[in-house]
Amino acid sequence: MQVWEFEEGKRYLVRVDRGEDLMEAVRTVAADKGIEAGRVTGIGALADAELGYFDVETKEYSRGRLPGSWELLSLVGNISLRDGRVQPHLHVLLGNAKLECRGGHLFSGTVSVTGEIFIDRLPGTLRREVDPEVRLPLLAR
Amino acid sequence: MQVWEFEEGKRYLVRVDRGEDLMEAVRTVAADKGIEAGRVTGIGALADAELGYFDVETKEYSRGRLPGSWELLSLVGNISLRDGRVQPHLHVLLGNAKLECRGGHLFSGTVSVTGEIFIDRLPGTLRREVDPEVRLPLLAR
Amino acid sequence: MQVWEFEEGKRYLVRVDRGEDLMEAVRTVAADKGIEAGRVTGIGALADAELGYFDVETKEYSRGRLPGSWELLSLVGNISLRDGRVQPHLHVLLGNAKLECRGGHLFSGTVSVTGEIFIDRLPGTLRREVDPEVRLPLLAR
Repeated sequence: MQVWEFEEGKRYLVRVDRGEDLMEAVRTVAADKGIEAGRVTGIGALADAELGYFDVETKEYSRGRLPGSWELLSLVGNISLRDGRVQPHLHVLLGNAKLECRGGHLFSGTVSVTGEIFIDRLPGTLRREVDPEVRLPLLAR
Repeated sequence: MQVWEFEEGKRYLVRVDRGEDLMEAVRTVAADKGIEAGRVTGIGALADAELGYFDVETKEYSRGRLPGSWELLSLVGNISLRDGRVQPHLHVLLGNAKLECRGGHLFSGTVSVTGEIFIDRLPGTLRREVDPEVRLPLLAR
Repeated sequence: MQVWEFEEGKRYLVRVDRGEDLMEAVRTVAADKGIEAGRVTGIGALADAELGYFDVETKEYSRGRLPGSWELLSLVGNISLRDGRVQPHLHVLLGNAKLECRGGHLFSGTVSVTGEIFIDRLPGTLRREVDPEVRLPLLAR
């Protein structure tokens, strides 16, 4: 992993390297740089991603794993704190050799070629708390 | 809906809540905050979205509705004024439990879990005018 | 093509017009404005896009062409220099009239309705160098 810093820490570009977990890379940079509120966007390639879909009836994520390497066509998300710990919330879209797409809430995935991820630091801290109705950690004041 | 303001109104994070229309939420925040030029990105979950595809032959949108709740994998777009009124232009990608994706130009959609939407304010005003050839409101000076 | 400049060149909005190549438009704006490090996001509509998927075994891109006009649902990427020349690295997701999606690494594509593309300038210069293992130009110091 290599990190470029811009404008005195207002923005970072992270080159995530082959074999590194994308979620962990974002979490590590945020923790190292003290980012407690942030925005994340990026592209790259991802292997063996575990993605989720939240079922509003059961209030649970169904999970699926996508074997092999996929283009990371879009990574969009944010960074906040949950119970004082950095919590990236990232959604991804992946593409295969037929240009077909799959996507979901990112649980894990290994960078297979490179990841080129921007992280913007927002001033202050964003927090999450489990919402009793939705049973998910939502952004909270 | 809850709104976080950063850097004296240069950027907002909007938590759109279950049951709220996503287009209307973006429009409302922009109108309330006086955002006449902006950039929008975000994630979340969306139900019963009505999406469009612009047919360059007929010069009309074909529309489709996606029943049920989908992960909002990507929301990308902008804010401008049309006839003096805030006009969000938003494209979305949605994912289901099989991790399959659908997407289009967003006409409407109800947040089903949460929406986490960033809005950047740009200085000044962006305007749209209907282009006589394309027959769509394009960004104009 | 029309270009709006914000905050003394820190950010641009580019309206790419029907018939213009999207890659070339981004490259041209970056070269004209001296952007040697940047972030790109956008939406629009794209015809006859040539997209790629990088095969980690053969270390080559497989390419596919998508005939006709598609909604440009998401454009995410960055700008750097390779051998001193502006090199956009852009991934796209496209949607058709059935709201089906395809996507990949963008090689070329002609704007079919409009393109609404944001380019953020980052201070300094980002460079790429071919990585001997991956055999692709990765971000490098």
